[in-house]
Amino acid sequence: MAERKGAGDQDLENEGISSNHKDMGPLRRNISEILERRQEPHLQSPTREPLLRSRTNTTSQIALIGANVCPIESLDYEYYHAFAAYACCNVVLATAAAALCAYIAPAAAGSGIPEVKAYLNGVDAHVILAPSTLFVKIFGSIGGVAAGFVVGKEGPMVHTGACIANLLGQGGSRKYHLTWTWLRFFKNDRDRRDLITCGAAAGVAAAFRAPVGGVLFALEEAASWWRSALLWRTFFTTAVVAVVLRALIRFCRSGNCGLFGKGGLIMFDVSSAMTGYKTDDLLAVIFLAVIGGLLGSLYNYLVDKVLRTYSIINEKGPRFKLLLVMAISMLTSCCSYGLPWLAKCTPCPSDLKEPCPTIGRSGNFKNFQCPPNHYNDLASLFLNTNDDAIRNLFSTGTGKEFQVTSILIFFLGVYTLGIITYGIAIPSGLFIPVILAGASYGRLVWTLFSPIFEIDAGLFALLGAASLLGGTMRMTVSLCVIMLELTNNLLILPLVMVVLLISKTIADIFNKGVYDQIVEMKGLPFMEAHAEPYMKHLVAADVVSGPLVSFNGVEKVGNIVHALKWTRHNGFPVIDEPPFFDAPELCGLVLRSHLLVVLKKKIFSSERVLSGQGILTRCKAFDFGKAGLGKGLKLEDLDISAEEMEMYVDLHPITNTSPYTVVESMSLAKAALLFRELGLRHLCVVPKTPGVSSSTNFSSVLQRPPITGILTRHDFMPEHIMGIYPHFARRK
Amino acid sequence: MAERKGAGDQDLENEGISSNHKDMGPLRRNISEILERRQEPHLQSPTREPLLRSRTNTTSQIALIGANVCPIESLDYEYYHAFAAYACCNVVLATAAAALCAYIAPAAAGSGIPEVKAYLNGVDAHVILAPSTLFVKIFGSIGGVAAGFVVGKEGPMVHTGACIANLLGQGGSRKYHLTWTWLRFFKNDRDRRDLITCGAAAGVAAAFRAPVGGVLFALEEAASWWRSALLWRTFFTTAVVAVVLRALIRFCRSGNCGLFGKGGLIMFDVSSAMTGYKTDDLLAVIFLAVIGGLLGSLYNYLVDKVLRTYSIINEKGPRFKLLLVMAISMLTSCCSYGLPWLAKCTPCPSDLKEPCPTIGRSGNFKNFQCPPNHYNDLASLFLNTNDDAIRNLFSTGTGKEFQVTSILIFFLGVYTLGIITYGIAIPSGLFIPVILAGASYGRLVWTLFSPIFEIDAGLFALLGAASLLGGTMRMTVSLCVIMLELTNNLLILPLVMVVLLISKTIADIFNKGVYDQIVEMKGLPFMEAHAEPYMKHLVAADVVSGPLVSFNGVEKVGNIVHALKWTRHNGFPVIDEPPFFDAPELCGLVLRSHLLVVLKKKIFSSERVLSGQGILTRCKAFDFGKAGLGKGLKLEDLDISAEEMEMYVDLHPITNTSPYTVVESMSLAKAALLFRELGLRHLCVVPKTPGVSSSTNFSSVLQRPPITGILTRHDFMPEHIMGIYPHFARRK
Repeated sequence: MAERKGAGDQDLENEGISSNHKDMGPLRRNISEILERRQEPHLQSPTREPLLRSRTNTTSQIALIGANVCPIESLDYEYYHAFAAYACCNVVLATAAAALCAYIAPAAAGSGIPEVKAYLNGVDAHVILAPSTLFVKIFGSIGGVAAGFVVGKEGPMVHTGACIANLLGQGGSRKYHLTWTWLRFFKNDRDRRDLITCGAAAGVAAAFRAPVGGVLFALEEAASWWRSALLWRTFFTTAVVAVVLRALIRFCRSGNCGLFGKGGLIMFDVSSAMTGYKTDDLLAVIFLAVIGGLLGSLYNYLVDKVLRTYSIINEKGPRFKLLLVMAISMLTSCCSYGLPWLAKCTPCPSDLKEPCPTIGRSGNFKNFQCPPNHYNDLASLFLNTNDDAIRNLFSTGTGKEFQVTSILIFFLGVYTLGIITYGIAIPSGLFIPVILAGASYGRLVWTLFSPIFEIDAGLFALLGAASLLGGTMRMTVSLCVIMLELTNNLLILPLVMVVLLISKTIADIFNKGVYDQIVEMKGLPFMEAHAEPYMKHLVAADVVSGPLVSFNGVEKVGNIVHALKWTRHNGFPVIDEPPFFDAPELCGLVLRSHLLVVLKKKIFSSERVLSGQGILTRCKAFDFGKAGLGKGLKLEDLDISAEEMEMYVDLHPITNTSPYTVVESMSLAKAALLFRELGLRHLCVVPKTPGVSSSTNFSSVLQRPPITGILTRHDFMPEHIMGIYPHFARRK
Repeated sequence: MAERKGAGDQDLENEGISSNHKDMGPLRRNISEILERRQEPHLQSPTREPLLRSRTNTTSQIALIGANVCPIESLDYEYYHAFAAYACCNVVLATAAAALCAYIAPAAAGSGIPEVKAYLNGVDAHVILAPSTLFVKIFGSIGGVAAGFVVGKEGPMVHTGACIANLLGQGGSRKYHLTWTWLRFFKNDRDRRDLITCGAAAGVAAAFRAPVGGVLFALEEAASWWRSALLWRTFFTTAVVAVVLRALIRFCRSGNCGLFGKGGLIMFDVSSAMTGYKTDDLLAVIFLAVIGGLLGSLYNYLVDKVLRTYSIINEKGPRFKLLLVMAISMLTSCCSYGLPWLAKCTPCPSDLKEPCPTIGRSGNFKNFQCPPNHYNDLASLFLNTNDDAIRNLFSTGTGKEFQVTSILIFFLGVYTLGIITYGIAIPSGLFIPVILAGASYGRLVWTLFSPIFEIDAGLFALLGAASLLGGTMRMTVSLCVIMLELTNNLLILPLVMVVLLISKTIADIFNKGVYDQIVEMKGLPFMEAHAEPYMKHLVAADVVSGPLVSFNGVEKVGNIVHALKWTRHNGFPVIDEPPFFDAPELCGLVLRSHLLVVLKKKIFSSERVLSGQGILTRCKAFDFGKAGLGKGLKLEDLDISAEEMEMYVDLHPITNTSPYTVVESMSLAKAALLFRELGLRHLCVVPKTPGVSSSTNFSSVLQRPPITGILTRHDFMPEHIMGIYPHFARRK
């Protein structure tokens, strides 16, 4: 017989100790009691039946920050009162989270995975990973999850990991007096990118307790450039996460950190009792995957529409953001409190080990409004933590525990709430809502097929979750490994693989993955891995945006300051010209940030001479290190006198003399490939025959400059290209 | 109590059916008997006690092709006779495998992973993936494993997968009359590369029954270029492998395919009874990992030395190859037959479910020369299949089953045999020898620490295998997932990660991974992912090898034929010159294979005119498809008359007008990065100021051609660069 374990069982057995119930009764019960007091990992000292008037309310302020505060389990009277208290707690927590988001760090709203993805693609928007964002992400996420929203903490944890990594990569934060000198070695683009990739991996590893899943997530979804060294760096990061997690779980087994560590290293262990499956069942699984793919792409479509609507509201100001959050919070409270009334009461099954109904503590069988020895299955799903709801749905051998109508209501409720919650001004992950909806969807499909095939409801819940995840996120290997590490059931691996592939393929017909969609909606200039088809019909020179601002090898300070002031270019070509060279030729590329350093140090000479090595003696390599996002020198920091404006600066020592170049007649598609694969910021476009244009004769040689222009990321964006060539169809 | 399962148990329970021993006794015993008859998956109808004279020898020829043929289990008399029979079988099988290798496809010898790796890096050695290699790889591998060598079948299976993929990628084989027209769509470099990557992934997935491990192996070890589409293509491939495997295992449960499918989808299931571990145990684990890393790098060092020695012998001819194989086969037989005599007999444990000693069938407790009710533990390891030996070592709660001296002898034997066996002319994988040596090494470390810590011998065997694998192969994530999928124990994941990282880091200090070492030893021009440090001191023009052979936009046929005949270049620059253009400029790059197609079709014109579009009407796109390795048109296939030699051919339609270019002053390190990241074959080096060299005045304009040379893979090789600049240190 399939058997569902209690929370205490799982924890102990996961650690490999096969204990005997009867032998260690008292100790065991003690642990169970401590463990089961509250479901939210962040907290302890929970409220017990806070709404029974006969007791004094011992709820401390901190104790309110639990998911689904005030679990209502035995409501014999005063339902309205209870609802008011429940909804009120939720709204207060939600408003606190939203206030943090709206006033301190608007960038912390939402999942954060699209932003991390964009950063790793090369989009350097500086608020994305700022310390304030980190702060709001952590506490806003706690508030949001605690307020009972249908949101996850996985996306925010990825963002949190990336923020911490960024803090390390920019040498700490000067603003908050957290700086370490030795971190300056990481002050360059590549190390920072690697660190942030590792941070994202660590986030997933911590959220799902899935170290290998974290590595694969970083590889498949987060990173745009990958190199072999990165593989074992992320692997090292997640190994540290796994070891720390395991140590903490071990430390917490004595019950002194609330419910953290429940389930051991494997959150939803279903390995012990999953029944087998036959080849015929594959039909049902394929059906499940196809519909799951459709539902997933519908989810993405609706999320996109809702996001666009919300962004209109959110743009009106922080107050409107708060109002929106409050409205959604009220709606969520209404749903989770009101919908369970629709469910019929079910008599408790007789062959049960745990008490039924569970009154006075959280558990699988909520009494709600039912008579004694009955439970409300819908309340058991809605008025529970997300983790426990998922565990309930994934449990095997529990096909009859939930009524079909309850599952249907729960599916519709969670699917809708998940869609309308994403986009409000709180940190909100997408994984948990999708897993919840998917698991209930899987159980629905099971009820459809259970008369025909002998299959397990828990297995179908798991596959349903996989199909919906595949349909929205469009990941394959990483989701597969995450599902594996969540459930510890290697034998269903082939089924999970098949489901993920089918649902992803089906959903890809209709739209893009949800994260890609959000990146696009936010207008972040994301470089796709492949060149768009219309790029084959263009050459590099077609899209270069002018006018070109270039410097001489030895340039007047005034010209440089002027160019820095009136353009926003980050890179300028340096051209060697007579008298130092016979003919103008491209020396290389100089960066704005490096120019600012030299101007700040005032390494000038009064004559136009090649005095370059002076710079290297007066500047150290670390002076040119990349500053934190938005933290570098600015033009306003300079203080240059009119006399100095007339002096000269030798740019040769700070010029990159080996910039990547393409000739102007290069296919744009191939230039885009070069740009993307090498992770460039600037790509020099040079004339095919400098000095000679085909219509002139030899006397007009040397009329054209040795560089046509510089391609940057924005020149490859469809919006830019469409602006020049409107007849190319919009990318979709 | 930890419990070791019998083979029959595992198979059934893996499928999720928790059967009761007593209820289905007769059926169960029946299945067990059938399953346990022989250990080698390829075969059935095994020999039972073939050396007892009183019985007739029913051994059919096919039955001999099992690993460790003629298992000697109850030897009461005639030991010499037995040894002669045993060694003779082994030598015959080994010689058969070696003969296939030596005479039909020498490229099939060895693991095959280095070759696949080199191919995916862009090394187009055409025998590597030929159909004859495929044939020899399959049957040679069966022979080699059956001959009792300490070799694995994993590497050969990867090579087999890649060969099959290559066959598909080149549209089948014309030589063997296996062609499909629709496969012509894959006749290009990129699709073929993708297919072969998928083939390699499928090989690992099939060998270890590890679908996700296969994907990661392809990513981490095999592939040099990776793109996101490839991730889900390999994932799809391994999903198909998993589904097919599962169906076959299901089909074989009734015992009608010998021992194939034993252990279900998880080969060495140790999930059920692995005991826990404490934080203190980490010290022992770190010690294990450090020594494992050292042993791993020593393994690589010795393999390299042995390979270099063997290659001297092997170069003398096929006969010497055969002799070498025979010698090693005899040595292996002597070891596996002789060494068990050193072990003391152990009395059978009393609380055992399976019969002890196992006489007349394969099992864990070999009687060998021992008195009744005793077993020889060393014989149980040596005279067993590799799979069963590993399963024995990995089993938990069996700390006392093996004596320390036996484990030590086994470790030394397997470690040495593994090293001296690799390199002889049979297909031989490296995984199994390393896992065997590592598992016994882990048990040795366990005996060292078991008085101090309470740890499990099976767990240490597993970690020992991981440490030695990490020390030789230097993979991280893929090995971790493969170990996970082999053993189905998610809870030891943190330990495995730590062990792999430490042993890889330690071993990386001393030398390269074993596959990289073999690639280097074979002289395959492998492009490393990173540029060598000395490349920073060179520019592109420094290493271009001349003389440059270029064509006019409209070129005389004779010149082309002459150039094709007297150079071995695969790409030629096309330069547009007067009268069609004012000044010479680089039109692009034309490939040898495309030139041959045009010459074969004789699309010539008698005048020097731009008549290009004629080619496109007379050739179809598929004519230019990439032929199979070494199968394309050759110069000898052309038949061009002297008259035609004087005609002209317009090269513009077949010229790639957007070749990637670098200027001659580009840093070689950056050029190498471009070459490697984009997976190029040719990189055009153009002058910084064409037509103008700094020492001349303007009157000598147009003296220099618009291209300096073409960089190919060989120009980036250390050997080439050292030839020009001997003062740059040898890469190591």
